[in-house]
Amino acid sequence: MADWKKTEQLYEGKAKKVFATENPEVVIVDYKDDATAFNGEKKGTIVGKGVINNRMSNYIMKQLEKEGVPTHLVEELSDRETAVKKVSIVPLEVIVRNVAAGSFSKRMGVEEGKDLLCPILEFSYKCDELNDPFINDDYALALGLATQEEIDTIKNYTRKVNEVLKKFFLSIGIRLIDFKIEFGRLSDGTIILADEISPDTCRLWDVKTNEKLDKDRFRRDMGGTEEAYQEVMKRIFGE
Amino acid sequence: MADWKKTEQLYEGKAKKVFATENPEVVIVDYKDDATAFNGEKKGTIVGKGVINNRMSNYIMKQLEKEGVPTHLVEELSDRETAVKKVSIVPLEVIVRNVAAGSFSKRMGVEEGKDLLCPILEFSYKCDELNDPFINDDYALALGLATQEEIDTIKNYTRKVNEVLKKFFLSIGIRLIDFKIEFGRLSDGTIILADEISPDTCRLWDVKTNEKLDKDRFRRDMGGTEEAYQEVMKRIFGE
Repeated sequence: MADWKKTEQLYEGKAKKVFATENPEVVIVDYKDDATAFNGEKKGTIVGKGVINNRMSNYIMKQLEKEGVPTHLVEELSDRETAVKKVSIVPLEVIVRNVAAGSFSKRMGVEEGKDLLCPILEFSYKCDELNDPFINDDYALALGLATQEEIDTIKNYTRKVNEVLKKFFLSIGIRLIDFKIEFGRLSDGTIILADEISPDTCRLWDVKTNEKLDKDRFRRDMGGTEEAYQEVMKRIFGE
Repeated sequence: MADWKKTEQLYEGKAKKVFATENPEVVIVDYKDDATAFNGEKKGTIVGKGVINNRMSNYIMKQLEKEGVPTHLVEELSDRETAVKKVSIVPLEVIVRNVAAGSFSKRMGVEEGKDLLCPILEFSYKCDELNDPFINDDYALALGLATQEEIDTIKNYTRKVNEVLKKFFLSIGIRLIDFKIEFGRLSDGTIILADEISPDTCRLWDVKTNEKLDKDRFRRDMGGTEEAYQEVMKRIFGE
């Protein structure tokens, strides 16, 4: 482990805290067990979630790096803490849908679980006050959220992430329904994958039973949320 | 005038009726004065609207044809009736926004009247039961609403339509805020501009006063709706 030491807390979000370090280019993320849904209207705790999301995200980021997707990962420091490159977040939630589910199913009248003819990549504008509205590329340009070059880079990386994740999850008996990722800009403008990849941000269904192994169990009061997160952890790390 | 004769009525919509003719490739559109808004929740009449929308649409379609955008226009038959090519409508409402207004302003928290950094082109899925939801290109592909080639063609034509319309309206002292158009497929699959271009489907503001000369007067109970439509007519035809 390198000598990354937390200095002051920069930010506390719904599911994590971020701390400065002595290196202005590096911050430390500390994953919490707190869970929220519906833009913070629903609150709760998923015991052990912080550990799982931290370790799983890092494991996946390493795979993505190997496949040519640059990520913010610097070094895992503990079960809940990871040193990551400091970025300014591009204010776009990048969502990929392989199978109809959630808000998409409701808005579009498509049954949950139905395969789509092709994956959908979509953007939401990261803005809590507006409830993260769904936008398209032109919106991002017209509102100055990103440049065309950044959008192209983000879409290319995102398609690669989807390929890698689909294959990886399938290898552990999980169907990747959809997921959300975010990108950031380094101080020189380079776009890299930031944020986490976890059952908080992916819909993960068991390949055989279609059992939900993700945050929808919390959102929909289905019970068994902790067990679902642990099941994903077990399939990845064999623990 | 050619010998286009109405045979049976094929369809009655919110603002027009469509009749078959003896030619299976041609239908007659009959523009009504009926007006609806908010997906049919609000109903009313705008006296003289049918005549204005019919004549104005045809006038604009002729200009667009000259500029290389194929349209459904065959021949104006009377003040309210026009013979047009029969199409199967692509189930996309194609919207262009030059200036923030309406639902865009509400959803995105951008003040009405604010210029956008670049025009926005967006699609809604034409589906009354779902309230014509906003979608992106991937949705159209994934739901089988149009092919990639059709989407590319539609976007190219739409950008051209925006250029032509902006210039035309400016020449009569009107600022083109946004508009909605629809495209159809001929029996051989060719994509052409269909539907109407009128104060029902465009937001038109007086260049000097920003007075609204469009259907928002009806939607928002502003009064002076008939006068606004007539003002547009007068500026186009000098009547």
